[in-house]
Amino acid sequence: MHSIQYFQNIIKQEFAKQDFLSEPEELYNPIDYALSLGGKRIRPVLTLMACELFDGDINETLAPAMGLEIFHNFTLLHDDVMDKSPIRRGKPTVFKKWDTNTAILSGDAMLIQAYSHITKTHINFLPDVLKIFNKTAIEVCEGQQYDMNYETSENITIDDYFKMIRLKTAVLIAACLKIGAIIGGASKIDTENIYKFGENIGIAFQLKDDLLDAFGDTVKFGKNTGNDIVTNKKTFLFLKAFELAKENVLDDLKHSFLIKDENEKKINKVTEIYKKLNIQEITEKEISYYYKKALTNLSEINVDDNRKKELENFAENLKKRDF
Amino acid sequence: MHSIQYFQNIIKQEFAKQDFLSEPEELYNPIDYALSLGGKRIRPVLTLMACELFDGDINETLAPAMGLEIFHNFTLLHDDVMDKSPIRRGKPTVFKKWDTNTAILSGDAMLIQAYSHITKTHINFLPDVLKIFNKTAIEVCEGQQYDMNYETSENITIDDYFKMIRLKTAVLIAACLKIGAIIGGASKIDTENIYKFGENIGIAFQLKDDLLDAFGDTVKFGKNTGNDIVTNKKTFLFLKAFELAKENVLDDLKHSFLIKDENEKKINKVTEIYKKLNIQEITEKEISYYYKKALTNLSEINVDDNRKKELENFAENLKKRDF
Repeated sequence: MHSIQYFQNIIKQEFAKQDFLSEPEELYNPIDYALSLGGKRIRPVLTLMACELFDGDINETLAPAMGLEIFHNFTLLHDDVMDKSPIRRGKPTVFKKWDTNTAILSGDAMLIQAYSHITKTHINFLPDVLKIFNKTAIEVCEGQQYDMNYETSENITIDDYFKMIRLKTAVLIAACLKIGAIIGGASKIDTENIYKFGENIGIAFQLKDDLLDAFGDTVKFGKNTGNDIVTNKKTFLFLKAFELAKENVLDDLKHSFLIKDENEKKINKVTEIYKKLNIQEITEKEISYYYKKALTNLSEINVDDNRKKELENFAENLKKRDF
Repeated sequence: MHSIQYFQNIIKQEFAKQDFLSEPEELYNPIDYALSLGGKRIRPVLTLMACELFDGDINETLAPAMGLEIFHNFTLLHDDVMDKSPIRRGKPTVFKKWDTNTAILSGDAMLIQAYSHITKTHINFLPDVLKIFNKTAIEVCEGQQYDMNYETSENITIDDYFKMIRLKTAVLIAACLKIGAIIGGASKIDTENIYKFGENIGIAFQLKDDLLDAFGDTVKFGKNTGNDIVTNKKTFLFLKAFELAKENVLDDLKHSFLIKDENEKKINKVTEIYKKLNIQEITEKEISYYYKKALTNLSEINVDDNRKKELENFAENLKKRDF
């Protein structure tokens, strides 16, 4: 079995082969820019790994894998408009560098390009691949909508949170694996198991992201920590702290969330309370819970165990990562 | 052969069968609203008519026809955001009734729903249908980009104008017909001919729209006339007038386009000049030219002529319409 780096290189080469520039340049330059910002290309890598797990021909996965990565970048582009995020991967977002209209239309074109790539899937697999992709794409929109709803809603529960991150983050990771498995010739049961593996890994991944935002090392994490705290984002940490805080601590917490324009002070106060309530340990436990569920899903896949090593490593790296 | 009204009824029933409402309602209510505004459903009707022309099973076209109509409504929804249009079909646009973020995300979900419907096309036709749909969808984005570019560009030529309306309007009408023909079992040459028929009809359709905006009857047209003049939109009429105007008339025209905040006066002055330059007659001639080209394309289709009557009527109605 090949390493993650091996597959990352393949994806890198595939992107280098493509020419995203065309006319009118006002439409295509932002697409080229958004796709050249890079990232770890985790999603297409998982498609290739899942195909190899079932001893399929990874060449058959290249087009849909590209489509999945372009889709992911489309969601980032439109999310950045909706969230008014100025920076992505250390560079100005499309809507900041150009404008809102450019970001809307270039994003639309990227979604269509994602479908164009997925359409190149071998006819034997095309209906199944499109079916799971359509379902996933609409779920990701639903997840983004819940995420926006939660900004202004009170009384968001931890269950609501899990529903949102499952839709916004986990199902796409799961679908990437499932599409690779379908093309790899996996049985129906195995495609379901690898989907569940991806879902649980995706949830663990998002929990880890929330944790790193509060407790990560700014340099390693590559962005400022505490951003979720500043914006009162209803992360697992936020919701768990509200669930556990009593009396004085609850008052302190409520008061901290009202602080405006003093980011440093706010971050310090909230992380102080998080520490008092053992939020870091509780979150790590939750991550371990989903990580273990994922490993169980993987163990149930009807493939020789030594073929699963790379996906196990992948899951472990996600759990251990400090960036 | 069945009438346009017959097919419009089928499409109406198909829409009535669908339930666009789901959770989260913030995402799905605007989709339901946008699709319930109605319209003439020209595009899916053309898909069904093209299928019947080649004696195909129109039941096989229902899902992709719905997808094409949803796609068209998706483009209107996002265009309204980009153009900041407050009214569509006499009702507030989604971005006005809700907000920009809602319009972006609901539009994205509609584009995905369009693909979900198209994915239901019979496997025998699916790759061909997806191929033409992907190509068309990206071209419509390119057309919208050119349209936005032209707002701020000087020196737009009539050729530029035709390139823009071909992409923004004509290719989707052409693709709707081609998809119906593919599913109807048409030969490759016939699918190309019906595509060209649609392209020419689409161009004539847009020219007629430009003409009605300046010279239409407000009541019959269903919206205020002169809007293109007020916004200095580079329509065929605008560009032709600039091409033909000389000396005093050119000075008058340039001066008229600078008038702000006096819409009535501006519309009167510009239509006065249009009349002096015979712009209405010239535009009608241009419409006739594309209408005739379309009829030639139709005549070349290898199908008994009496089967073509309804599509001929359709083209003639477009040309004659005063709304």
